[in-house]
Amino acid sequence: MDDADAQLHGGPHGGPHGAPQIQAHAPRGNPRKAVYTAQDLRGLPHLDSLPGEAPYLRGPYASMYTGKPWTLRQYAGFAGAQASNAFFRDLLAGGAQGLSVAFDLPTHRGYDSDHPAAQADVGLAGVAIDCVDDMRRLFDGIALDKVSVSMTMNGAVLPVLGCFILAARAQGLCPAQLSGTIQNDILKEFQVRNTYIYAPAPSMRIATDVVEYVARHMPRFNAMSISGYHFQEAGADGTLELALTLANAREYLRAFVARGLDVDAFCRTLSFFFGVGMDFYGEIAKLRAARVLWAEMVAAHGARQSRSLAMRMHCQTSGWSLAAQTPLNNIARTTVEAMAAVFGGTQSLHTNAFDEALALPGDEAARIARDTQLILQQETGLRDVVDPWAGSYMMESLTADTCEAVRGIMREIDEEGGVLAALDSGWLTRRIHIMASRCQARIDTGARPIVGVNLHKDLPGDAHVALRGTVRSAGLRDGGGAPTSARAAGTRAIDAAAVRAEQMARLASLRARRDPAAVARTLDDLARIARSGTGNLLEAVMTALSADATVGECTAALERVWPRHRPRSDFVAGVYAAARGRGGAEQDGAEPGDAQKGGAGAHAGVGFGDEDWSRARQAVARLKAEGTAPSILLVKLGQDGHDRGIKAVAGALTDAGFRVYMGGLFETPEGAARLARELGVAALGVSTLAGAHRELLPRVATCLREVGLDRLPLLAGGVIPEADHASLRLAGVRAIFGPGTPMPEIALALAALLSRHCHTQI
Amino acid sequence: MDDADAQLHGGPHGGPHGAPQIQAHAPRGNPRKAVYTAQDLRGLPHLDSLPGEAPYLRGPYASMYTGKPWTLRQYAGFAGAQASNAFFRDLLAGGAQGLSVAFDLPTHRGYDSDHPAAQADVGLAGVAIDCVDDMRRLFDGIALDKVSVSMTMNGAVLPVLGCFILAARAQGLCPAQLSGTIQNDILKEFQVRNTYIYAPAPSMRIATDVVEYVARHMPRFNAMSISGYHFQEAGADGTLELALTLANAREYLRAFVARGLDVDAFCRTLSFFFGVGMDFYGEIAKLRAARVLWAEMVAAHGARQSRSLAMRMHCQTSGWSLAAQTPLNNIARTTVEAMAAVFGGTQSLHTNAFDEALALPGDEAARIARDTQLILQQETGLRDVVDPWAGSYMMESLTADTCEAVRGIMREIDEEGGVLAALDSGWLTRRIHIMASRCQARIDTGARPIVGVNLHKDLPGDAHVALRGTVRSAGLRDGGGAPTSARAAGTRAIDAAAVRAEQMARLASLRARRDPAAVARTLDDLARIARSGTGNLLEAVMTALSADATVGECTAALERVWPRHRPRSDFVAGVYAAARGRGGAEQDGAEPGDAQKGGAGAHAGVGFGDEDWSRARQAVARLKAEGTAPSILLVKLGQDGHDRGIKAVAGALTDAGFRVYMGGLFETPEGAARLARELGVAALGVSTLAGAHRELLPRVATCLREVGLDRLPLLAGGVIPEADHASLRLAGVRAIFGPGTPMPEIALALAALLSRHCHTQI
Repeated sequence: MDDADAQLHGGPHGGPHGAPQIQAHAPRGNPRKAVYTAQDLRGLPHLDSLPGEAPYLRGPYASMYTGKPWTLRQYAGFAGAQASNAFFRDLLAGGAQGLSVAFDLPTHRGYDSDHPAAQADVGLAGVAIDCVDDMRRLFDGIALDKVSVSMTMNGAVLPVLGCFILAARAQGLCPAQLSGTIQNDILKEFQVRNTYIYAPAPSMRIATDVVEYVARHMPRFNAMSISGYHFQEAGADGTLELALTLANAREYLRAFVARGLDVDAFCRTLSFFFGVGMDFYGEIAKLRAARVLWAEMVAAHGARQSRSLAMRMHCQTSGWSLAAQTPLNNIARTTVEAMAAVFGGTQSLHTNAFDEALALPGDEAARIARDTQLILQQETGLRDVVDPWAGSYMMESLTADTCEAVRGIMREIDEEGGVLAALDSGWLTRRIHIMASRCQARIDTGARPIVGVNLHKDLPGDAHVALRGTVRSAGLRDGGGAPTSARAAGTRAIDAAAVRAEQMARLASLRARRDPAAVARTLDDLARIARSGTGNLLEAVMTALSADATVGECTAALERVWPRHRPRSDFVAGVYAAARGRGGAEQDGAEPGDAQKGGAGAHAGVGFGDEDWSRARQAVARLKAEGTAPSILLVKLGQDGHDRGIKAVAGALTDAGFRVYMGGLFETPEGAARLARELGVAALGVSTLAGAHRELLPRVATCLREVGLDRLPLLAGGVIPEADHASLRLAGVRAIFGPGTPMPEIALALAALLSRHCHTQI
Repeated sequence: MDDADAQLHGGPHGGPHGAPQIQAHAPRGNPRKAVYTAQDLRGLPHLDSLPGEAPYLRGPYASMYTGKPWTLRQYAGFAGAQASNAFFRDLLAGGAQGLSVAFDLPTHRGYDSDHPAAQADVGLAGVAIDCVDDMRRLFDGIALDKVSVSMTMNGAVLPVLGCFILAARAQGLCPAQLSGTIQNDILKEFQVRNTYIYAPAPSMRIATDVVEYVARHMPRFNAMSISGYHFQEAGADGTLELALTLANAREYLRAFVARGLDVDAFCRTLSFFFGVGMDFYGEIAKLRAARVLWAEMVAAHGARQSRSLAMRMHCQTSGWSLAAQTPLNNIARTTVEAMAAVFGGTQSLHTNAFDEALALPGDEAARIARDTQLILQQETGLRDVVDPWAGSYMMESLTADTCEAVRGIMREIDEEGGVLAALDSGWLTRRIHIMASRCQARIDTGARPIVGVNLHKDLPGDAHVALRGTVRSAGLRDGGGAPTSARAAGTRAIDAAAVRAEQMARLASLRARRDPAAVARTLDDLARIARSGTGNLLEAVMTALSADATVGECTAALERVWPRHRPRSDFVAGVYAAARGRGGAEQDGAEPGDAQKGGAGAHAGVGFGDEDWSRARQAVARLKAEGTAPSILLVKLGQDGHDRGIKAVAGALTDAGFRVYMGGLFETPEGAARLARELGVAALGVSTLAGAHRELLPRVATCLREVGLDRLPLLAGGVIPEADHASLRLAGVRAIFGPGTPMPEIALALAALLSRHCHTQI
């Protein structure tokens, strides 16, 4: 067990913060008027600007899709390099216009596939890449000077980008010929996604070194994809998403300037990544506003070239908006979202498959997702006109309103002392969490209608497709990793053991044939460069990789200088209950499409599920009266850092009256069991999203027995395919909650388990 | 055999017209500019008008969907009254906000269910209604003063509306309490849909009597739904659809004024019905333009009240745009179309089920179609803003362009001498047919890309869902009746014999218990009122129905005065081949989303399928050289009047070199066989769309044997579920072509059959 593993156990087990000060002006989109007129355009800036001209309100390019369509780029990757390679080739043959690589969690976290802490996650949520040869096989037969490649990689950006450049070199290509994007947006990892490795400061050094290298050597490549998507998936609305994204972008700009890089040289390497949800008008306005705000910001930093000023973006339809019930409805949702992305002027687009909320995405679902884009490109005429909404009284107003609201949030962040300070103080996390909790409460109470979830749920014709036990993807589910993990765990029928065995065999063979001295020397050099604060880390990593060092070894070499970052685990209580209490009526929480406007199935004020919530609170009170301490430890297992779901559950269970403890992220089964005993909790809840539940949950049950907690109720939540339920129950899991299970349902089930548990002990 | 049946045999068996003068300015949407700016708005009218204010550019009502959403109204009906009643109740429970009744073809054509000419069609394409009691049972338990009911009824409008009013009376409701719409748009029946009964002049009298009655007695009811939908399904683009619709509307206005009705009194009873296809911007502009043009037109006729000036409309997504391959893609298509209808400001909407091109619509597909609307209403925020496109440089320009183009086509119709003259001269039919043939050629050649049809057709991941033998719904399929017939024939598993038996038993019982003298007297009165030219026919029909006369008897009484109209059967040759030759390059045929703009899978000029077309023409030439006359008789059987498909095939086969004869509409098996012998053709092709193929096709084979044509190849085309193929082949059908089979494929198959047939005779 190395130090990376050791740190997994000792995270702070924070209890909840006290009920927070809920801001009266919690940001949310923009209030809409029912009717806009030409009057609304008075005094708005940029109305006569053209596409391809600053501030790029109307698009970064003059001809936009009338020249060629946006790039159809579907995020994909699973198992080993060879399997993913075959899938990529199919995608390209089937109309994909660029690739987007999903890496598995061990790769994200800088662990080789043979690392003990990582084994349960190998090849599940994406493809496993341990060395240059893996990357070479991943792109075998795919001309990297022709096909642009996007890589979602942040923590292990150095060895992964290094492998990519070296794999291209094996195709005879120099870095200047490569086009694509590396995400390399480490700030949002600390804020929401948790797939970091080192602490913020060294992480910023790494990100900056990557930008520096790309700016110098890779004119067709984006060194950073500054991402709002994960904020939206974590619960932010479009305005907050954009504000946090641009706040991070500003932080990067400052860092690059501080490094002494030329503004125009690095700005042209920066791209953006946004989520696009169901707030149709708001999402279009967001993307239009994003370009204006970015142009302003970089101009203020001295950028002058249009390539710097013109924001280019990738968009992905919202995973959060997918419902597990009547999954074919998700095709309509994704179509609406894709259209918003197109109207917003995105440069490339990923559309989600309709069954991703079920963890069972199949070939057909992937094809429909692809075809949705092709239909929009080829059959609808959408591409005929550049920025078709230009001049719309509503859209221009909303765009200007969005700009104003975003500037306001960014000022607040300034007042907090900047992005890192706002993260450190908890301001940022709280802000997102409050929004997410309110939204969950509004769904649970029916104030925010979702067809098939809280609207027309159990009507004739629905019964035969309703899925028992899995409800909407709003609760434990959270974004980014889940769709891919689902794809991996679902239809693709990944043989995790086989993938791991092959990766281990390849690693063993690599280690046997390479020159150990050369490896050690280059890794020492890498650590020295890290320590010295001078020199480019990407170049040093490429030297090590060329000597056949692995991704994990490069990461470990840097860990000698910069230990792995220990995550905070905290959550916010009070918001869920407060939002429930207010139903859908609160001013600042109103959302587009609200039921209070009337129409079928309006639930405003009805308090859908209120009875369950009351019963849950009463049950907890009874437990307390009976002397059972209604407490639970919640942990996340494995290398998956998506924690919106577990935080939402922690907050709501606290509000229901339970005493909730949160374990650290990246927990092991052994650690979770030990912690449960130390804390003396009455139950253990495990959140799992990335497909490793088949291995990890039974191990948790075993570990509980080993520490003498044979009878402690074990609960699981997350993306767990129905097909796995039986074996998990057999292994000792007492309750399984699918994505988006209403909180009262979880609270009630837990209370019942504790009550029964109590009785069985009597 | 009565006179109605007799007339089925003697229709003109027109050969083709000569190659027509293809107009250089064939109407199609509007040319689009890539970029619109504020300059484009200069001089455009109505930019400062508000929703709910003349000319209603921005919507007929001030608050539009911000008050309450559009009405979710799904077209449905099948089998008998009781079965449809149960389905309607389910629809209402499941979120439907109004009903839309599909009647079976015998009802449409004014035949009782026991009429010999109609029996094969009873209960298939809609619900069978023979008398007031059937209508009473249809709405049993549905409060007709609460639920608005739309009825697609034109030919038999008098007895059907009469039954409805009397059924409501049985609920204790007077006509003034009823809300809904009767289609009663007889002009378009002569132009495209063919579900008429009498000649145009008496048909106009009937329509006017209905309007007069409703204007007087039913303040909440629409006496007419002037329909563009069927023009679009027949091949017209949005601009031609709107122009023809408004030309018909103008014709009605003139008739009502000539009758001496008050303009404001009748205008408020008129509503509209449009199709919404895949030309997203164009369809929105069409609906906005429609309101402006209507307000202009009725103001010119002296209307002053806003209820007269403000056009109210129902929309339906395009059946034509549905593909039989990868049917789930149709959910995305329908979503796009539904959004266009909503942005256009429709008052109610029908969304098609994704599997309607397969003739297998199921419960789940119907639910997804419904949910697509609910999602748009409840989850997207689309309803937040009235006329959100207002002010858009592009949309306002396109709306004004559409107005101008429509005015131009209406001037052309004036030059032809008006709608009825343009129909009589063939101008109107040719205009639509040319557009349809070009479109078919563009699809067959790949110039107009359709995902899964001519784009990414046979790629990995597609194979397992591709459906052998059924291709896109562009060829034989045509609109209006097909979806419903498909629904009826498909999953609902209508037991046609049982429905017919029950209807016949009920009719027998009715006839046994009623007072025959009273029936005869009221029917005589009805005929007298028809002959006299004075008095209201609807009132006279209601008197007869109250005496327990049937729908068929009322119709027959009027036939004493006005014999059934004999349809013309002609088609246009030369267009398909010409359009193929030009590929996608012709100026006036260019369509939005054209492949020549580049992007994946562009086929411009490639001539997708050209090889098949050449081979077909060569095969025909060989047959001629060998001395086989390559001729075919094409007929439509039963009461279904949709003839776009058969006309398209007739034109293309002529272009391929065949000698094509067209039988009359509403052909019987006996008549088709006799005609084949008289003409001495080498093959017989039957088009069938309404589900009666199971009975009628085997009967055709029998009749062919009876006239000594045992070996004449029998071909069938249309919406024929895969499940029926085997039994039809066993019965003697030699080839079956699904909706949208490319024309070269049909031509090749026919040539092969004739060649083989020739050999077997040697």
